[in-house]
Amino acid sequence: MTAEDKLNSLGITLPFPPAPAGSYVPVVISQNLAFIAGQIPTEAGQVKFRGKLGKDVTVEDGQQAARLCTINALAQLKSKLGDLDMVKRVVKVTGFVNCDPSFVDQPKVVNGASDLLVQIFGEKGRHARAAVGVSSLPLDSAVEVEFIVEV
Amino acid sequence: MTAEDKLNSLGITLPFPPAPAGSYVPVVISQNLAFIAGQIPTEAGQVKFRGKLGKDVTVEDGQQAARLCTINALAQLKSKLGDLDMVKRVVKVTGFVNCDPSFVDQPKVVNGASDLLVQIFGEKGRHARAAVGVSSLPLDSAVEVEFIVEV
Amino acid sequence: MTAEDKLNSLGITLPFPPAPAGSYVPVVISQNLAFIAGQIPTEAGQVKFRGKLGKDVTVEDGQQAARLCTINALAQLKSKLGDLDMVKRVVKVTGFVNCDPSFVDQPKVVNGASDLLVQIFGEKGRHARAAVGVSSLPLDSAVEVEFIVEV
Repeated sequence: MTAEDKLNSLGITLPFPPAPAGSYVPVVISQNLAFIAGQIPTEAGQVKFRGKLGKDVTVEDGQQAARLCTINALAQLKSKLGDLDMVKRVVKVTGFVNCDPSFVDQPKVVNGASDLLVQIFGEKGRHARAAVGVSSLPLDSAVEVEFIVEV
Repeated sequence: MTAEDKLNSLGITLPFPPAPAGSYVPVVISQNLAFIAGQIPTEAGQVKFRGKLGKDVTVEDGQQAARLCTINALAQLKSKLGDLDMVKRVVKVTGFVNCDPSFVDQPKVVNGASDLLVQIFGEKGRHARAAVGVSSLPLDSAVEVEFIVEV
Repeated sequence: MTAEDKLNSLGITLPFPPAPAGSYVPVVISQNLAFIAGQIPTEAGQVKFRGKLGKDVTVEDGQQAARLCTINALAQLKSKLGDLDMVKRVVKVTGFVNCDPSFVDQPKVVNGASDLLVQIFGEKGRHARAAVGVSSLPLDSAVEVEFIVEV
Protein backbone atom coordinates (compact mmCIF):
# COMPACT_ATOMS: atom_id res chain seq x y z
CA MET A 1 0.00 0.00 0.00
CA THR A 2 1.37 3.42 -0.90
CA ALA A 3 1.68 6.25 1.60
CA GLU A 4 -1.18 8.02 -0.17
CA ASP A 5 -3.39 4.92 0.06
CA LYS A 6 -2.51 4.54 3.69
CA LEU A 7 -3.50 8.13 4.42
CA ASN A 8 -6.85 7.49 2.76
CA SER A 9 -7.40 4.28 4.71
CA LEU A 10 -6.74 6.21 7.95
CA GLY A 11 -9.33 8.76 6.90
CA ILE A 12 -6.75 11.55 6.81
CA THR A 13 -7.22 14.30 4.25
CA LEU A 14 -4.15 16.49 4.05
CA PRO A 15 -5.02 20.14 4.61
CA PHE A 16 -3.89 23.06 2.52
CA PRO A 17 -0.35 23.41 3.88
CA PRO A 18 -0.17 26.06 6.65
CA ALA A 19 1.72 29.26 5.86
CA PRO A 20 5.01 29.72 7.71
CA ALA A 21 4.74 31.83 10.88
CA GLY A 22 7.76 33.92 9.83
CA SER A 23 10.08 34.79 6.97
CA TYR A 24 11.07 31.27 5.97
CA VAL A 25 9.88 28.43 3.73
CA PRO A 26 8.20 25.18 4.76
CA VAL A 27 10.58 22.70 3.07
CA VAL A 28 14.13 22.89 1.73
CA ILE A 29 15.63 19.96 -0.15
CA SER A 30 19.41 19.68 -0.22
CA GLN A 31 20.80 16.68 -2.05
CA ASN A 32 18.48 13.88 -0.94
CA LEU A 33 17.45 15.35 2.39
CA ALA A 34 14.25 17.34 2.84
CA PHE A 35 14.27 19.61 5.88
CA ILE A 36 10.73 20.43 6.98
CA ALA A 37 10.28 23.55 9.08
CA GLY A 38 8.95 23.15 12.61
CA GLN A 39 5.22 22.49 12.43
CA ILE A 40 2.69 23.54 15.03
CA PRO A 41 -0.76 21.99 15.64
CA THR A 42 -2.84 24.29 13.46
CA GLU A 43 -6.11 23.34 11.83
CA ALA A 44 -7.96 25.66 9.45
CA GLY A 45 -5.57 28.46 10.35
CA GLN A 46 -6.04 28.21 14.12
CA VAL A 47 -3.80 26.59 16.73
CA LYS A 48 -5.97 23.67 17.91
CA PHE A 49 -3.86 22.61 20.90
CA ARG A 50 -2.59 25.44 23.08
CA GLY A 51 -0.95 25.53 26.48
CA LYS A 52 1.48 23.50 28.54
CA LEU A 53 1.64 19.77 29.16
CA GLY A 54 1.64 19.00 32.86
CA LYS A 55 -0.53 22.05 33.43
CA ASP A 56 -3.23 22.85 30.83
CA VAL A 57 -2.93 19.99 28.32
CA THR A 58 -3.31 16.23 28.89
CA VAL A 59 -0.87 13.68 27.51
CA GLU A 60 -3.63 12.44 25.19
CA ASP A 61 -4.21 15.92 23.79
CA GLY A 62 -0.45 16.38 23.49
CA GLN A 63 -0.31 13.22 21.38
CA GLN A 64 -3.11 14.54 19.18
CA ALA A 65 -1.19 17.79 18.85
CA ALA A 66 1.97 15.93 17.76
CA ARG A 67 -0.11 13.91 15.29
CA LEU A 68 -1.58 17.14 13.87
CA CYS A 69 1.91 18.66 13.51
CA THR A 70 2.81 15.56 11.50
CA ILE A 71 -0.24 15.84 9.26
CA ASN A 72 0.74 19.45 8.59
CA ALA A 73 4.30 18.35 7.80
CA LEU A 74 3.00 15.76 5.34
CA ALA A 75 0.87 18.45 3.71
CA GLN A 76 4.00 20.60 3.32
CA LEU A 77 5.95 17.68 1.92
CA LYS A 78 3.22 16.68 -0.53
CA SER A 79 2.96 20.27 -1.71
CA LYS A 80 6.73 20.28 -2.35
CA LEU A 81 7.20 16.76 -3.79
CA GLY A 82 3.85 16.29 -5.53
CA ASP A 83 3.64 12.73 -4.23
CA LEU A 84 4.36 11.36 -0.74
CA ASP A 85 5.54 8.12 -2.29
CA MET A 86 8.76 9.95 -3.18
CA VAL A 87 9.69 9.69 0.50
CA LYS A 88 12.43 7.07 0.81
CA ARG A 89 12.85 7.23 4.52
CA VAL A 90 11.89 9.37 7.50
CA VAL A 91 15.29 10.20 8.98
CA LYS A 92 14.87 12.38 12.06
CA VAL A 93 12.07 13.83 14.15
CA THR A 94 12.59 16.46 16.82
CA GLY A 95 9.67 17.07 19.15
CA PHE A 96 9.53 20.19 21.30
CA VAL A 97 6.91 19.89 24.04
CA ASN A 98 5.61 23.07 25.68
CA CYS A 99 5.44 22.00 29.31
CA ASP A 100 5.66 22.68 32.98
CA PRO A 101 9.18 22.18 34.43
CA SER A 102 7.87 19.12 36.32
CA PHE A 103 6.63 17.30 33.19
CA VAL A 104 8.68 14.23 32.18
CA ASP A 105 6.53 12.35 29.64
CA GLN A 106 7.78 14.05 26.47
CA PRO A 107 8.37 10.65 24.78
CA LYS A 108 4.71 9.67 25.17
CA VAL A 109 3.62 12.97 23.65
CA VAL A 110 5.97 12.79 20.67
CA ASN A 111 4.85 9.19 20.01
CA GLY A 112 1.78 10.90 18.53
CA ALA A 113 4.07 11.96 15.66
CA SER A 114 6.20 8.81 15.49
CA ASP A 115 3.31 6.37 15.52
CA LEU A 116 1.56 8.11 12.64
CA LEU A 117 4.74 8.11 10.54
CA VAL A 118 5.13 4.36 11.03
CA GLN A 119 1.43 3.79 10.26
CA ILE A 120 1.76 5.69 7.00
CA PHE A 121 5.22 4.71 5.78
CA GLY A 122 5.76 1.35 7.50
CA GLU A 123 9.44 0.42 7.98
CA LYS A 124 10.51 3.50 5.98
CA GLY A 125 8.71 5.58 8.60
CA ARG A 126 11.04 4.51 11.41
CA HIS A 127 13.24 7.45 12.40
CA ALA A 128 15.77 8.69 14.92
CA ARG A 129 14.23 11.12 17.36
CA ALA A 130 14.79 13.63 20.12
CA ALA A 131 12.03 14.80 22.44
CA VAL A 132 12.58 17.69 24.83
CA GLY A 133 10.51 19.93 27.07
CA VAL A 134 10.60 23.65 26.38
CA SER A 135 9.32 26.60 28.34
CA SER A 136 7.14 28.01 25.57
CA LEU A 137 6.36 27.74 21.87
CA PRO A 138 5.08 29.99 19.06
CA LEU A 139 1.43 31.07 19.47
CA ASP A 140 1.29 29.04 22.71
CA SER A 141 1.29 25.78 20.71
CA ALA A 142 1.37 22.68 22.90
CA VAL A 143 3.87 20.93 20.64
CA GLU A 144 6.20 21.78 17.75
CA VAL A 145 7.73 19.05 15.60
CA GLU A 146 10.41 19.26 12.91
CA PHE A 147 11.37 16.55 10.42
CA ILE A 148 14.20 15.44 8.16
CA VAL A 149 13.17 13.07 5.40
CA GLU A 150 15.18 11.31 2.68
CA VAL A 151 13.67 11.70 -0.78
CA MET B 1 25.04 41.33 -6.47
CA THR B 2 27.23 38.87 -4.54
CA ALA B 3 26.68 38.07 -0.88
CA GLU B 4 29.85 39.98 -0.07
CA ASP B 5 28.66 43.05 -2.01
CA LYS B 6 25.31 42.82 -0.28
CA LEU B 7 26.96 42.77 3.15
CA ASN B 8 28.89 45.90 2.20
CA SER B 9 25.78 47.65 0.93
CA LEU B 10 24.07 46.90 4.26
CA GLY B 11 27.05 48.42 6.08
CA ILE B 12 27.86 45.13 7.79
CA THR B 13 31.49 44.36 8.51
CA LEU B 14 31.94 40.78 9.59
CA PRO B 15 33.71 40.57 12.94
CA PHE B 16 36.62 38.33 13.79
CA PRO B 17 34.70 35.06 14.31
CA PRO B 18 33.89 34.46 18.01
CA ALA B 19 35.69 31.61 19.74
CA PRO B 20 33.52 28.61 20.67
CA ALA B 21 32.22 28.65 24.27
CA GLY B 22 33.29 25.03 24.77
CA SER B 23 35.36 22.19 23.34
CA TYR B 24 33.96 22.18 19.83
CA VAL B 25 34.55 23.86 16.47
CA PRO B 26 32.48 26.59 14.79
CA VAL B 27 31.80 24.86 11.44
CA VAL B 28 31.94 21.27 10.20
CA ILE B 29 31.41 20.50 6.54
CA SER B 30 30.21 17.01 5.63
CA GLN B 31 29.63 16.37 1.94
CA ASN B 32 27.93 19.57 0.81
CA LEU B 33 26.37 20.54 4.12
CA ALA B 34 28.03 23.00 6.48
CA PHE B 35 26.83 22.72 10.06
CA ILE B 36 27.43 25.96 11.96
CA ALA B 37 27.57 25.73 15.74
CA GLY B 38 24.95 27.58 17.76
CA GLN B 39 25.83 31.28 17.74
CA ILE B 40 25.07 33.70 20.53
CA PRO B 41 24.76 37.50 20.24
CA THR B 42 28.31 38.45 21.12
CA GLU B 43 30.03 41.62 19.94
CA ALA B 44 33.70 42.31 20.64
CA GLY B 45 33.81 39.34 23.00
CA GLN B 46 30.82 40.36 25.12
CA VAL B 47 27.24 39.12 25.02
CA LYS B 48 25.38 42.21 23.80
CA PHE B 49 21.81 40.97 24.40
CA ARG B 50 21.24 39.21 27.72
CA GLY B 51 18.13 38.09 29.54
CA LYS B 52 14.70 36.74 28.75
CA LEU B 53 12.17 37.79 26.16
CA GLY B 54 8.82 38.54 27.76
CA LYS B 55 10.64 39.73 30.85
CA ASP B 56 13.91 41.67 30.39
CA VAL B 57 14.26 41.92 26.61
CA THR B 58 11.90 43.50 24.05
CA VAL B 59 10.92 41.78 20.81
CA GLU B 60 12.88 44.45 18.93
CA ASP B 61 16.03 43.75 20.92
CA GLY B 62 15.44 40.01 20.46
CA GLN B 63 15.36 40.56 16.71
CA GLN B 64 18.62 42.49 16.89
CA ALA B 65 20.07 39.63 18.94
CA ALA B 66 19.01 37.07 16.30
CA ARG B 67 20.49 39.31 13.60
CA LEU B 68 23.78 39.52 15.52
CA CYS B 69 23.87 35.71 15.92
CA THR B 70 23.52 35.53 12.14
CA ILE B 71 26.34 38.01 11.54
CA ASN B 72 28.52 35.89 13.81
CA ALA B 73 27.53 32.76 11.89
CA LEU B 74 28.45 34.44 8.61
CA ALA B 75 31.81 35.41 10.10
CA GLN B 76 32.36 31.74 11.03
CA LEU B 77 31.35 30.61 7.59
CA LYS B 78 33.53 33.13 5.80
CA SER B 79 36.47 32.12 7.94
CA LYS B 80 35.89 28.48 6.96
CA LEU B 81 35.02 28.91 3.27
CA GLY B 82 37.10 31.97 2.41
CA ASP B 83 34.21 33.44 0.42
CA LEU B 84 30.51 33.67 1.29
CA ASP B 85 29.65 33.34 -2.38
CA MET B 86 30.42 29.61 -1.99
CA VAL B 87 27.08 29.34 -0.17
CA LYS B 88 24.64 27.59 -2.52
CA ARG B 89 21.64 27.65 -0.23
CA VAL B 90 20.74 28.31 3.37
CA VAL B 91 19.01 25.06 4.34
CA LYS B 92 17.86 25.22 7.96
CA VAL B 93 17.82 27.70 10.81
CA THR B 94 16.97 26.77 14.39
CA GLY B 95 16.31 29.66 16.74
CA PHE B 96 16.31 29.14 20.49
CA VAL B 97 14.75 32.08 22.32
CA ASN B 98 15.52 32.57 26.01
CA CYS B 99 12.14 33.55 27.37
CA ASP B 100 9.54 33.63 30.04
CA PRO B 101 7.08 30.68 29.93
CA SER B 102 4.33 33.10 28.86
CA PHE B 103 6.18 34.39 25.78
CA VAL B 104 4.75 33.26 22.42
CA ASP B 105 6.37 35.52 19.81
CA GLN B 106 9.42 33.37 19.03
CA PRO B 107 8.76 33.62 15.26
CA LYS B 108 8.99 37.44 15.33
CA VAL B 109 12.28 37.24 17.20
CA VAL B 110 13.86 34.67 14.89
CA ASN B 111 12.78 36.73 11.86
CA GLY B 112 15.77 38.88 12.84
CA ALA B 113 17.93 36.02 11.57
CA SER B 114 15.76 34.95 8.64
CA ASP B 115 15.26 38.42 7.22
CA LEU B 116 18.98 39.14 7.18
CA LEU B 117 19.72 35.86 5.39
CA VAL B 118 17.21 36.70 2.68
CA GLN B 119 18.57 40.27 2.39
CA ILE B 120 22.08 38.91 1.88
CA PHE B 121 21.52 35.79 -0.18
CA GLY B 122 18.19 36.53 -1.91
CA GLU B 123 16.25 33.43 -2.96
CA LYS B 124 19.17 31.19 -1.90
CA GLY B 125 18.75 32.60 1.58
CA ARG B 126 15.27 31.13 2.04
CA HIS B 127 15.42 28.30 4.56
CA ALA B 128 13.37 25.88 6.61
CA ARG B 129 13.20 26.92 10.25
CA ALA B 130 12.21 26.01 13.75
CA ALA B 131 11.79 28.59 16.53
CA VAL B 132 11.29 27.52 20.12
CA GLY B 133 11.33 29.09 23.56
CA VAL B 134 13.86 27.80 26.06
CA SER B 135 14.26 28.36 29.76
CA SER B 136 17.85 29.60 29.58
CA LEU B 137 20.86 29.93 27.30
CA PRO B 138 24.65 30.03 27.61
CA LEU B 139 25.95 33.19 29.29
CA ASP B 140 22.34 34.38 29.67
CA SER B 141 22.18 35.12 25.92
CA ALA B 142 18.76 36.29 24.78
CA VAL B 143 18.89 34.16 21.63
CA GLU B 144 20.96 31.31 20.19
CA VAL B 145 20.75 30.40 16.49
CA GLU B 146 22.22 27.45 14.61
CA PHE B 147 22.44 27.01 10.85
CA ILE B 148 22.81 24.37 8.16
CA VAL B 149 24.02 25.69 4.82
CA GLU B 150 24.64 23.95 1.48
CA VAL B 151 28.03 24.77 -0.03
CA MET C 1 45.17 4.21 18.02
CA THR C 2 41.69 3.20 16.86
CA ALA C 3 38.51 4.45 18.50
CA GLU C 4 37.96 1.00 19.96
CA ASP C 5 41.49 0.92 21.41
CA LYS C 6 40.99 4.38 22.82
CA LEU C 7 37.77 3.33 24.55
CA ASN C 8 39.64 0.42 26.12
CA SER C 9 42.48 2.63 27.26
CA LEU C 10 39.95 4.94 28.94
CA GLY C 11 38.47 1.93 30.73
CA ILE C 12 35.09 2.41 29.02
CA THR C 13 33.07 -0.69 28.24
CA LEU C 14 30.14 0.12 25.99
CA PRO C 15 26.86 -1.02 27.51
CA PHE C 16 24.15 -2.95 25.75
CA PRO C 17 22.53 -0.08 23.82
CA PRO C 18 19.53 1.39 25.69
CA ALA C 19 16.09 0.80 24.16
CA PRO C 20 14.39 3.89 22.73
CA ALA C 21 11.94 5.58 25.12
CA GLY C 22 9.27 5.73 22.40
CA SER C 23 8.29 4.47 18.97
CA TYR C 24 11.47 5.31 17.09
CA VAL C 25 14.86 3.78 16.32
CA PRO C 26 18.23 4.67 17.81
CA VAL C 27 20.17 5.36 14.59
CA VAL C 28 19.19 6.16 11.00
CA ILE C 29 21.83 6.40 8.29
CA SER C 30 21.01 8.47 5.22
CA GLN C 31 23.74 8.71 2.61
CA ASN C 32 26.86 9.17 4.72
CA LEU C 33 25.23 10.78 7.73
CA ALA C 34 24.20 8.80 10.80
CA PHE C 35 21.55 10.52 12.90
CA ILE C 36 21.62 9.23 16.48
CA ALA C 37 18.46 9.68 18.52
CA GLY C 38 18.63 11.88 21.62
CA GLN C 39 20.38 9.92 24.37
CA ILE C 40 19.67 10.28 28.07
CA PRO C 41 22.03 9.37 30.94
CA THR C 42 20.83 5.84 31.61
CA GLU C 43 22.95 3.09 33.12
CA ALA C 44 21.69 -0.46 33.45
CA GLY C 45 18.21 0.67 32.50
CA GLN C 46 17.96 3.46 35.07
CA VAL C 47 18.40 7.20 34.63
CA LYS C 48 21.57 7.84 36.64
CA PHE C 49 21.47 11.66 36.61
CA ARG C 50 18.06 13.20 37.30
CA GLY C 51 16.92 16.72 38.03
CA LYS C 52 17.80 20.26 37.07
CA LEU C 53 21.17 21.97 36.80
CA GLY C 54 21.27 25.11 38.89
CA LYS C 55 18.93 23.46 41.36
CA ASP C 56 19.40 19.72 42.06
CA VAL C 57 22.42 18.79 39.93
CA THR C 58 25.98 20.18 40.05
CA VAL C 59 27.91 21.18 36.94
CA GLU C 60 30.27 18.24 37.59
CA ASP C 61 27.38 15.77 37.69
CA GLY C 62 25.91 17.41 34.62
CA GLN C 63 29.20 16.82 32.81
CA GLN C 64 29.16 13.17 33.88
CA ALA C 65 25.58 12.95 32.61
CA ALA C 66 26.60 14.37 29.21
CA ARG C 67 29.50 11.91 29.12
CA LEU C 68 27.14 9.01 29.87
CA CYS C 69 24.76 10.15 27.11
CA THR C 70 27.76 10.01 24.77
CA ILE C 71 28.75 6.51 25.90
CA ASN C 72 25.18 5.42 25.21
CA ALA C 73 25.30 7.03 21.78
CA LEU C 74 28.53 5.20 20.99
CA ALA C 75 26.89 1.95 22.07
CA GLN C 76 24.03 2.68 19.65
CA LEU C 77 26.45 3.52 16.89
CA LYS C 78 28.59 0.43 17.44
CA SER C 79 25.48 -1.74 17.43
CA LYS C 80 24.49 -0.21 14.08
CA LEU C 81 27.89 -0.03 12.37
CA GLY C 82 29.60 -3.04 13.91
CA ASP C 83 32.81 -1.06 14.37
CA LEU C 84 33.32 2.49 15.68
CA ASP C 85 36.29 2.90 13.38
CA MET C 86 33.77 3.35 10.56
CA VAL C 87 33.15 6.84 11.98
CA LYS C 88 34.76 9.35 9.62
CA ARG C 89 33.85 12.46 11.52
CA VAL C 90 31.62 13.62 14.34
CA VAL C 91 29.61 16.38 12.64
CA LYS C 92 27.17 17.90 15.12
CA VAL C 93 26.26 17.60 18.78
CA THR C 94 23.18 19.19 20.32
CA GLY C 95 23.07 19.24 24.10
CA PHE C 96 19.80 19.92 25.92
CA VAL C 97 20.39 20.76 29.57
CA ASN C 98 17.49 20.38 32.01
CA CYS C 99 17.94 23.45 34.17
CA ASP C 100 16.62 26.25 36.26
CA PRO C 101 15.83 29.44 34.28
CA SER C 102 18.77 31.14 36.01
CA PHE C 103 21.37 28.59 34.89
CA VAL C 104 23.85 29.82 32.24
CA ASP C 105 26.66 27.24 32.18
CA GLN C 106 25.23 24.91 29.52
CA PRO C 107 28.54 24.93 27.58
CA LYS C 108 30.47 23.55 30.59
CA VAL C 109 27.92 20.77 31.00
CA VAL C 110 27.92 19.76 27.35
CA ASN C 111 31.73 19.73 27.34
CA GLY C 112 31.25 16.38 29.12
CA ALA C 113 30.09 15.03 25.75
CA SER C 114 32.46 17.01 23.53
CA ASP C 115 35.59 16.23 25.50
CA LEU C 116 34.93 12.49 25.42
CA LEU C 117 34.37 12.55 21.65
CA VAL C 118 37.71 14.28 21.11
CA GLN C 119 39.44 11.88 23.51
CA ILE C 120 38.11 8.91 21.57
CA PHE C 121 38.23 10.11 17.97
CA GLY C 122 40.96 12.77 18.11
CA GLU C 123 40.69 15.40 15.35
CA LYS C 124 37.80 13.46 13.74
CA GLY C 125 35.92 13.93 17.00
CA ARG C 126 35.78 17.73 16.68
CA HIS C 127 32.23 18.80 15.93
CA ALA C 128 29.89 21.75 15.59
CA ARG C 129 27.63 22.11 18.60
CA ALA C 130 24.64 23.81 20.15
CA ALA C 131 23.96 23.80 23.88
CA VAL C 132 20.68 25.09 25.25
CA GLY C 133 18.80 25.05 28.54
CA VAL C 134 15.38 23.41 28.57
CA SER C 135 12.63 23.37 31.16
CA SER C 136 12.40 19.58 31.42
CA LEU C 137 13.51 16.33 29.82
CA PRO C 138 12.24 12.75 29.45
CA LEU C 139 12.21 10.80 32.74
CA ASP C 140 13.60 13.90 34.50
CA SER C 141 17.02 13.31 32.86
CA ALA C 142 19.53 16.02 33.68
CA VAL C 143 20.85 16.11 30.11
CA GLU C 144 19.87 14.83 26.66
CA VAL C 145 22.36 14.80 23.79
CA GLU C 146 21.83 14.06 20.10
CA PHE C 147 24.52 13.46 17.49
CA ILE C 148 25.12 13.54 13.74
CA VAL C 149 28.12 11.53 12.60
CA GLU C 150 29.65 11.02 9.14
CA VAL C 151 30.30 7.36 8.32
